[in-house]
Amino acid sequence: MSIHARTDRSPISLTDAEIFAAHEGGKLEIALSAPLETQRDLSIAYTPGVARVSRAIEQAPDAAGSYTWASRLVAVVSDGSAVLGLGDIGASASLPVMEGKSALFRRFGGLNSIPIVLETNDVDEIVETLVRLRSSFGAVNLEDVSAPRCFELESKLIEALDMPVMHDDQHGTAVVVLAALTNAARVVGRPLESLRIVVSGAGAAGVAVSEMLLHAGVRDLVVLDSRGVLGPDRQLDGVKCGLASRTNPRGLTGGIDVALAGADVFIGVSSGTVPEEAVAAMSSDAIVFALSNPDPEVHPEVAARHARVVATGRSDFPNQINNVLAFPGIFRGALDAGARRITTEMKLAAAAAIAGMVEAPTAERIVPSPLEAGVADAVAAAVIAATD
Amino acid sequence: MSIHARTDRSPISLTDAEIFAAHEGGKLEIALSAPLETQRDLSIAYTPGVARVSRAIEQAPDAAGSYTWASRLVAVVSDGSAVLGLGDIGASASLPVMEGKSALFRRFGGLNSIPIVLETNDVDEIVETLVRLRSSFGAVNLEDVSAPRCFELESKLIEALDMPVMHDDQHGTAVVVLAALTNAARVVGRPLESLRIVVSGAGAAGVAVSEMLLHAGVRDLVVLDSRGVLGPDRQLDGVKCGLASRTNPRGLTGGIDVALAGADVFIGVSSGTVPEEAVAAMSSDAIVFALSNPDPEVHPEVAARHARVVATGRSDFPNQINNVLAFPGIFRGALDAGARRITTEMKLAAAAAIAGMVEAPTAERIVPSPLEAGVADAVAAAVIAATD
Repeated sequence: MSIHARTDRSPISLTDAEIFAAHEGGKLEIALSAPLETQRDLSIAYTPGVARVSRAIEQAPDAAGSYTWASRLVAVVSDGSAVLGLGDIGASASLPVMEGKSALFRRFGGLNSIPIVLETNDVDEIVETLVRLRSSFGAVNLEDVSAPRCFELESKLIEALDMPVMHDDQHGTAVVVLAALTNAARVVGRPLESLRIVVSGAGAAGVAVSEMLLHAGVRDLVVLDSRGVLGPDRQLDGVKCGLASRTNPRGLTGGIDVALAGADVFIGVSSGTVPEEAVAAMSSDAIVFALSNPDPEVHPEVAARHARVVATGRSDFPNQINNVLAFPGIFRGALDAGARRITTEMKLAAAAAIAGMVEAPTAERIVPSPLEAGVADAVAAAVIAATD
Repeated sequence: MSIHARTDRSPISLTDAEIFAAHEGGKLEIALSAPLETQRDLSIAYTPGVARVSRAIEQAPDAAGSYTWASRLVAVVSDGSAVLGLGDIGASASLPVMEGKSALFRRFGGLNSIPIVLETNDVDEIVETLVRLRSSFGAVNLEDVSAPRCFELESKLIEALDMPVMHDDQHGTAVVVLAALTNAARVVGRPLESLRIVVSGAGAAGVAVSEMLLHAGVRDLVVLDSRGVLGPDRQLDGVKCGLASRTNPRGLTGGIDVALAGADVFIGVSSGTVPEEAVAAMSSDAIVFALSNPDPEVHPEVAARHARVVATGRSDFPNQINNVLAFPGIFRGALDAGARRITTEMKLAAAAAIAGMVEAPTAERIVPSPLEAGVADAVAAAVIAATD
């Protein structure tokens, strides 16, 4: 049940004037959870009353979970190195995006969230900074950090901070893609395990999507970076090397045309383009997720000539693959469960919950709308149930 | 015009149950400054609309002042090393105090504010951390950092961050003390410059109060630390040495009894006690500010036997010297003026504005109530007028 179903398919037309007016002064405000109107209110919230609360936390540190906002506060952290499609624009210019993300946490997850932008791109300095700040918040949503640094950074933060940490460009995307693919597979009547899947892009999203699909049981997965199929003929290191060793079971070499010939699923998380002929060469009942924004790898109307199910990252076509379906509920579930890690099991559960929000999937509706009520609640419940 | 004048003089009685209930879940919340209810709202506040705002800031960094919340966001920063009367209780246990301070910024100054607590007591690490974070906020209120580290820390932060920075335990206290003393001097009909003043305490507050009084034209100032009067007979370094060279014009040596004999003003910002005999030995029309909390250096009813004007830090006696009279308006004025420093002139103007809120000072009313409307507005206007 979508709150505001769009009835046309034209892109939303936005003027600079209305965009800048909406961002004037920023998008977040601080509010008080209790009034400060009387001397008594002041005495409770500040001195002398607050001293008793501070003393209680000093004596039993876990009390901070009950008597501060930190335990349910998500820090949205970025160094501004890979912001939307804009690239390395720096900390300050990335802040409007992080404020927007914090607003989405509040609106869809019911969680408090503050943006923290960092004037350093050094992985160890970022880890050191967040370790020094760690009593100030309860979870970290990493955002718009460039690959391959993002893999090392996330991994080091998970070790260093005893709290949920997730790079949303990786795992939020992966969870929603898996949810969408689960329902697309239902539409075409194929088990996930039987599908030949091609992932184009081996950055943050491509790597995480590929890992998630392997965890979900996918067997025939081919991953491409800008130079072509990851395989034994390539000189690779780091995460790409690891991915190459667990994908491409038929030993393909070459580009997107080779990969897509006979494939069942295309997942585009690059900023490249895919020619119509390559899509036409996919199997019957093909599934195309062209997620590059704002320009999909193949236009969804072109893809629809050859594919049975088509999804994009855009709101002006059916089947928008949007991370906001995942991250608010994942973090709320992890915090409600008192989890110290966001595990693969929690992410698989989140994907299943999102897929389950669509009762009878059709080619035009494989995921719920981002504005649909109940998505974050369902995801949070699934994440809690999947927590050790 | 006090919103809630107290009619009795008994301390407010608070139970642990009501205090802890009021702090449950913390005292701050994030709110959205614009709705996120439609696909169009999402497209404006997040992708694709936000990209235009980020690009604008990348191209003209000053635009961050208009299109993010950072330029009017005060970070309340502490390392938890000198929290209220509790001492070095650490970052996490200090957080309820910092949340309370952020709540006061919102309530009285109309400013957004977030608490940032740091798991390091190293001055250079704190500076380094805040430099990395500096695009995330527009001003720093340092809070509850122990002396003498607080002097070095504030000074280094002012150099390193191009924004208003103020250690409130120093300067907020100093501004309100000067305001109160200005009106107390009116009550006793003496010019400030003519008063013999004794400051007991040479920590954060004592040093800043003494500096402020010197800037305001006070000539006969004697400062004591826990070992007695700062003077030529003492082995001193750092800020105490500097203070000793500019105070104690009559070359006193000894303790509080020596200092108070014939003095016109006592300002206690220590946690010590002053015997009634020493207060009795002050001049006629004496002024006593016994600001130690929760136990004043001399009980105000005892002081009132010998002094004409008595003030404390407590809400249950007349003339509460409370920093909340100063910091919300000082920061709002500094941010509204686009100031990059909080100067002595701005602090003197703030003190004059607070004093000016009491039209006809009396012995029982030398400062406005913390809950009185208009104080922060008046302070902010004065600070703006005093900005270069």
